[in-house]
Amino acid sequence: VKVFLNGRLVTVDAAALDIADRGFTLGDGLYETIAVKDGRPARLPAHLARLRRGLGVIGLALAETDAALEAALGYIVRANDIEEGVLRLTVTRGPAPRGLMPPERPTPTLLIVGRAQRLGDRPPARAVVATGTRRNEHSPLSRIKTTNCLDAILALKEAAAKGADEALLLNTKGNLAEAAAANLFLVIGGRAVTPPIADGALAGIMRADLLRHIDAAERTLKPADIGQASEAFLTSSLGVRPLVAVDGIAVGDGRPGPVCKKSQEIAWTAEDAVRP
Amino acid sequence: VKVFLNGRLVTVDAAALDIADRGFTLGDGLYETIAVKDGRPARLPAHLARLRRGLGVIGLALAETDAALEAALGYIVRANDIEEGVLRLTVTRGPAPRGLMPPERPTPTLLIVGRAQRLGDRPPARAVVATGTRRNEHSPLSRIKTTNCLDAILALKEAAAKGADEALLLNTKGNLAEAAAANLFLVIGGRAVTPPIADGALAGIMRADLLRHIDAAERTLKPADIGQASEAFLTSSLGVRPLVAVDGIAVGDGRPGPVCKKSQEIAWTAEDAVRP
Repeated sequence: VKVFLNGRLVTVDAAALDIADRGFTLGDGLYETIAVKDGRPARLPAHLARLRRGLGVIGLALAETDAALEAALGYIVRANDIEEGVLRLTVTRGPAPRGLMPPERPTPTLLIVGRAQRLGDRPPARAVVATGTRRNEHSPLSRIKTTNCLDAILALKEAAAKGADEALLLNTKGNLAEAAAANLFLVIGGRAVTPPIADGALAGIMRADLLRHIDAAERTLKPADIGQASEAFLTSSLGVRPLVAVDGIAVGDGRPGPVCKKSQEIAWTAEDAVRP
Repeated sequence: VKVFLNGRLVTVDAAALDIADRGFTLGDGLYETIAVKDGRPARLPAHLARLRRGLGVIGLALAETDAALEAALGYIVRANDIEEGVLRLTVTRGPAPRGLMPPERPTPTLLIVGRAQRLGDRPPARAVVATGTRRNEHSPLSRIKTTNCLDAILALKEAAAKGADEALLLNTKGNLAEAAAANLFLVIGGRAVTPPIADGALAGIMRADLLRHIDAAERTLKPADIGQASEAFLTSSLGVRPLVAVDGIAVGDGRPGPVCKKSQEIAWTAEDAVRP
């Protein structure tokens, strides 16, 4: 297995991180999870654009151009012979002395790993509404993809402890924000709706594509709205997953619905997914 | 320089982290910053107790006993000849395959680094109230010391951009929570007050000691309360720092006050600080 670390393609056993890396010590980093289909990173322009927005929010300059990042992702796809699979790109502010204040001239860490795996439709999910923590829609970090994932991890652990496999997170006002690592769509009155970014939803890339392709709308959603939904599904860069129960209660008739199925088809056939 | 990494005392150049460490990839970790005075870790029982509470919140079992952690901290103090200085202990959920859900049997990473430095009183601070982000008092993570520090980093960067050297963070309700890496005390009507933990203040160890020793009280504080304060100061495990201005307006007469000076004395003389 080969990984890309700070400009070099190395075997995974030879790759190692500095113990002073601010990604490790302070969570001072961002990441992107990118599907590979037909040997190509899917929705790459959107992933790179989101990464750039994130770098802007945390105030980190990356020397690599988008073309250089695309080339590095391509190295990993080819070196590991990935026809279908997952890439993960992680950027941190790199090694620095102790203290929260970033160094004036950081030397960012850039890590890309990837592996082949099937991206087939996952089995329908059963979720709980997490009671242990909330998503902070007052932080700009709720809108970018940072490595500060502990709230999502707590929510997912709560779900597992309750026998579910996904968690829905509320924001601090008690509105639905998203799932632990996916966006939430409900179908209400025949139309797909999803919480707005301002409610603490990550600006998901599959979410943005579906908003266009299935004529979905952004709308503030309360937990009680789930009871009005004919179907529900979760979206991430790795696909669309039916959500058939929440807190032990079936959504709609408890089976994947037509809007979900259409979204699953669009996930890998929309021009956004496959353009180079 | 020697560091302690996963049971071994190694030179800093020989120490390296796994690229799959969840501390790096997902911020799945905790830390403690511990002062060293007279060659001993200060307030060690309180630091270890807080670490254990944090491990409980994130659901991570650490094989090392408190005695083992104390021994490891002691190795670093002696190996690096630290009479006065700072230790940092970091625990993460260790290396794991991609995905938010923790592995069933994690192999935690334990890293201890330390170095000699003077813990003398720092110059008075000038702060801003951060406008770019808020602290999430709805998350149990606000009460433990995790490596998810990006909100605090954003707040400090905002302070630096405005020519200040500290940032005060509001919680999602608009009440004062704490500073980027310190607790906040105001002196109002002759009494020291500090935001309660429920308002998003970290359970600071120096904060807890001062609550006892200077007869301070916990009280919800609004930004407007700063205008009523005769003095203000910031506390962390590394000491007590006067806060003489907020958003360009002097606190009290703009100079360190008597309660702050008394707290600075107590910081290193209270029995809590020096007991083994």
